[in-house]
Amino acid sequence: MSIPDPKFMKAAVLAADEGLTLGKGGPFGAVVVKDGKIIAVGSNHVTSTNDPTAHAEVMAIREACKVLGAYQLTDCEIYTSCEPCPMCLGAIYWARPQAVYYASTRHDAADAGFDDSFIYDELNVEPENRSIPFIHLAEESAASLFNTWKTSDNKKEY
Amino acid sequence: MSIPDPKFMKAAVLAADEGLTLGKGGPFGAVVVKDGKIIAVGSNHVTSTNDPTAHAEVMAIREACKVLGAYQLTDCEIYTSCEPCPMCLGAIYWARPQAVYYASTRHDAADAGFDDSFIYDELNVEPENRSIPFIHLAEESAASLFNTWKTSDNKKEY
Repeated sequence: MSIPDPKFMKAAVLAADEGLTLGKGGPFGAVVVKDGKIIAVGSNHVTSTNDPTAHAEVMAIREACKVLGAYQLTDCEIYTSCEPCPMCLGAIYWARPQAVYYASTRHDAADAGFDDSFIYDELNVEPENRSIPFIHLAEESAASLFNTWKTSDNKKEY
Repeated sequence: MSIPDPKFMKAAVLAADEGLTLGKGGPFGAVVVKDGKIIAVGSNHVTSTNDPTAHAEVMAIREACKVLGAYQLTDCEIYTSCEPCPMCLGAIYWARPQAVYYASTRHDAADAGFDDSFIYDELNVEPENRSIPFIHLAEESAASLFNTWKTSDNKKEY
């Protein structure tokens, strides 16, 4: 893990500021850095693209993966203007960069009207008791999917 | 919230099965239902599209939002072949459907080699101590983003 460089955080904030000025979505920006260079920039595009998953970190991760031609951000670092929400945290774990640097916190985001902190709290609520209930509905054929996967010879793991 | 209909879960499993057969990615499928009809289908496309965020639920949510021309899945339900990972749970909270039905669990997924359960555990680890460290890096200009947002007259909230 390299020493964090404030210039990359300023670039993430600049991306957020540009997105905000252009009406792309919420005030969030992120950059992906590899070998001391920015390889992808993202800003929130939720409302302008009708995509609730178009958060800055998701946008930057998807772009960086395109640039690298890979589904893993090996040896990369992510700088984001705000602590990632649970969706973005999950996306980061699946992309597997080396480290994440964030400026504002989930509490700053909550204070500005965003659900980040609320969603963190909901994660620890029993699925069926959440504000959006998550209900287990058994389906016999679902188990066979994992059996097929586990015994497959040519699967591409991720 | 309507009574869950097993035929929609079978459709989610079928989407997973098709994706698996075609080599699109992992063994996961999901559908979005509105007014008793499937309006979007998704399956995991991580490895075939080099997109670590292309989980079945994210694919189905993005597609359903396109169909509805909205960034909210009001009055919709999601059926997914497996309990959503934290990324997909977050995406679901931002999309705000009425309910989620899932067949296999995060433990079934873990048993098949997927990180879902691991990521759930990491969420409760202090950010800087996670296997991917999340490090607070203060940046003065980040706070002004939220101030601009809060005082903006023409923002589109989500």
